[in-house]
Amino acid sequence: MTEKTKLIAPRLPRGFEDRTPGDIAAVGQMIETIRKVYERYGFDPVETPLLELTETLGKFLPDTDRPNAGVFSLQDDDEQWMSLRYDLTAPLARYFAENFETLPKPYRSYRQGYVFRNEKPGPGRFRQFMQFDADTVGAPGPEADAEMCMMMADVMDALGLAGKYVVRANNRKVLDGVLEAAGVTSDEQKLAVLRAVDKLDKFGQEGVKLLLGAGRKDESGDFTKGADLTDAQAAVVLDYVAGKPPADNEGVTELDAMQTLFDAAGYGPDRIKIDPSVVRGLEYYTGPVFEIELTFKVQNEKGQDVVFGSVGGGGRYDGLVSRFRREPVPATGFSIGVSRLANALKLTGNLGSKEPVGPVVVLVMDKDQTARYQAMVSELRKAGIRAEMFLGSTKNFGKQVAYADKRNAPAVVIEGSQEREQGILQIKDLVAGKQAAEAITDNAEWKAARPGQFEIKREDLVPAIQKLLSEQ
Amino acid sequence: MTEKTKLIAPRLPRGFEDRTPGDIAAVGQMIETIRKVYERYGFDPVETPLLELTETLGKFLPDTDRPNAGVFSLQDDDEQWMSLRYDLTAPLARYFAENFETLPKPYRSYRQGYVFRNEKPGPGRFRQFMQFDADTVGAPGPEADAEMCMMMADVMDALGLAGKYVVRANNRKVLDGVLEAAGVTSDEQKLAVLRAVDKLDKFGQEGVKLLLGAGRKDESGDFTKGADLTDAQAAVVLDYVAGKPPADNEGVTELDAMQTLFDAAGYGPDRIKIDPSVVRGLEYYTGPVFEIELTFKVQNEKGQDVVFGSVGGGGRYDGLVSRFRREPVPATGFSIGVSRLANALKLTGNLGSKEPVGPVVVLVMDKDQTARYQAMVSELRKAGIRAEMFLGSTKNFGKQVAYADKRNAPAVVIEGSQEREQGILQIKDLVAGKQAAEAITDNAEWKAARPGQFEIKREDLVPAIQKLLSEQ
Repeated sequence: MTEKTKLIAPRLPRGFEDRTPGDIAAVGQMIETIRKVYERYGFDPVETPLLELTETLGKFLPDTDRPNAGVFSLQDDDEQWMSLRYDLTAPLARYFAENFETLPKPYRSYRQGYVFRNEKPGPGRFRQFMQFDADTVGAPGPEADAEMCMMMADVMDALGLAGKYVVRANNRKVLDGVLEAAGVTSDEQKLAVLRAVDKLDKFGQEGVKLLLGAGRKDESGDFTKGADLTDAQAAVVLDYVAGKPPADNEGVTELDAMQTLFDAAGYGPDRIKIDPSVVRGLEYYTGPVFEIELTFKVQNEKGQDVVFGSVGGGGRYDGLVSRFRREPVPATGFSIGVSRLANALKLTGNLGSKEPVGPVVVLVMDKDQTARYQAMVSELRKAGIRAEMFLGSTKNFGKQVAYADKRNAPAVVIEGSQEREQGILQIKDLVAGKQAAEAITDNAEWKAARPGQFEIKREDLVPAIQKLLSEQ
Repeated sequence: MTEKTKLIAPRLPRGFEDRTPGDIAAVGQMIETIRKVYERYGFDPVETPLLELTETLGKFLPDTDRPNAGVFSLQDDDEQWMSLRYDLTAPLARYFAENFETLPKPYRSYRQGYVFRNEKPGPGRFRQFMQFDADTVGAPGPEADAEMCMMMADVMDALGLAGKYVVRANNRKVLDGVLEAAGVTSDEQKLAVLRAVDKLDKFGQEGVKLLLGAGRKDESGDFTKGADLTDAQAAVVLDYVAGKPPADNEGVTELDAMQTLFDAAGYGPDRIKIDPSVVRGLEYYTGPVFEIELTFKVQNEKGQDVVFGSVGGGGRYDGLVSRFRREPVPATGFSIGVSRLANALKLTGNLGSKEPVGPVVVLVMDKDQTARYQAMVSELRKAGIRAEMFLGSTKNFGKQVAYADKRNAPAVVIEGSQEREQGILQIKDLVAGKQAAEAITDNAEWKAARPGQFEIKREDLVPAIQKLLSEQ
């Protein structure tokens, strides 16, 4: 370029990331495992587009307490606003309402894909991330909710996490009953109480008590303002978190029914348990709520041991389809955070994370012989062997082998003019070569031994490579 | 709802579509087939996010002659513009430049995913659609271009389209040479000439001649304005389309080198052929261009027989990475239009398009016995059998069976109070039942025969269903 144009910096917007072959393969395998469980439970796939009309999505972000919670929106040329989906539930409600006449009811479906949050990104918090949901629309009873909990447990088992998770279930109606019994009426105070209850696992009953009152100071001195309940009000809530559910409460009845189903199907409290401290999705849910908690310890940014925590959850949302249709449409479902779960599996060693095995690389020893090399590559490919000719511009032999090494290639094939005259090929087994090289310390010895290198007849290319691959 | 809020219409923005289980399964299978060929050729996967900074994407839409060509863009909270990717090549250029230091060179990757065009949608033309690309970055020679053509041919063969396609290749430098020899200098006239050449297949040499001159009137009387060349200029171009390539042209040399490689690897002109009429992506490519054409006939909207046409293509784009880096970075690749190819496979019967086999449905005969039904479902699932309990609100037996039918269920399991007392279950084989019902014309006879229905012991549930499924 003679003209010095200004170069553009190659970079992504904040909160977005590229994915590498190892990650793609490992997460793909994980998704396949989840998919099989969902299908065994009778769910069928459906896929909706990434953009929807803003008015059909509504604003039901499950975590409204996050800073800058929001969606990515843009205006169409007819002035209508469109948004990138922020979850997979709002599009499902639209899809179900749009296809109400033709879908089987209950409608049982799963969906997997990217969702977008127009939020401040942070470490491990992305603005594009993957969810994998399952929902039953048109099923009013606790049987449908119980099934969701059992399916979440079965997914965790299928991923090799048996003994390392617990599915915890609660019911919004129970929490509402407690708030009513305690006489908490302002929305702000309700929210503060629910947040306090949510912290039971983390801070214990003593901590919850502080958060129900004036507030709590942590070890570093940071102060969290409390719900400012009176002692009498706080006592009602504390009774609840101590294990005394409110009397005559529909939510309690529903949880009992779910427990009966867990027992009948053989899901013990080590896998699914009713837990009064589960709060989740404050504005979204109308009945049972549940979440998958990974119970093993990890270190947080401050180096403290903490439980890994939630990798997914959901609940009943009987109101969401009502935005489109007059009749009530009960629905329940859950969502797994795919990237977060993949991180967890990485920590437990349950994520297959190996890099792909590279292709056999046919080196270009003579630039005017590429048709010969291409023919070798085609032979190998026809036999189903991953192979390529070196296509870079270098004539340097060492750089070509370095390329093959970097690609994790099992072998390179070499035909120089000498080999061509003799009708032979040199095969360099890169795996054996590496092992042998590790055992040889002397440079001269290495050059003489040429570890892993051997000679074959040109016509034996395919069987020789097949043999080499089967032995590696 | 007592409060009559205004209902929202459940609908998608224009040009977007939902995908059903049959489509998802069929396209998934097709993608898997393509993926295997790409991997055999030595390409590894990479995935980039759907949103990129607008300035890094640039404006390189391959079809600038489309109406309303454009991208979906929005402004981030720091005022930077972001866009939904409109193809998979511009993000690849950004990715390669960003990871230049660590990537193997040549960098060989494939990527599959949705791209977005902010265009006027039409029948079969969507604003979100899927592409499946492969590219080699850092390979300057025609070997890399030839490999792309061979890989496209192998993909078509793997999809069962042998004999129904041809990969056609040309070279931008050849076209440039012809324009130069003809003395065509204005951009507008160049474009008109290239469009005329592109129509060789459709209108023959006579039609091209008209389009090089004043213009062409079709059978319906519609007039297409021509390139307004002089007769002498037109003669140069017509010589070219008749098969006489320009002399001393680098593009011709490159095409000859590619032909040598096709011959060496055994790809005859029935699969890959050099074709002077291939034009493609006017602003984008710098050397070889190629496209996959499906050669079988289909009917267009007017009921006329036309060849199905292009389902993908690509070429060499040596300039795209230069936007980010001073040194030249040669690159070549191609893109398959996944949805369009799926449509083609549907027409040829090569797309597996069957609906999924539904779950075994355990009916709810007594609402207070759901724990028993749930236990049956859990037994079946543990044995790997797709199963569910009916979760709808109806008590109507017929509606439950109708649901199972609609889900394509293989069987329903029935336990009423009588069966419970006797320790038995009724199994209704819905496949056998349907076949038997077709043979029975009399309603009374049907009721008496209860086709496909049989009795088993409660403890034989799993083996009985396994036997039924293996026989269906």
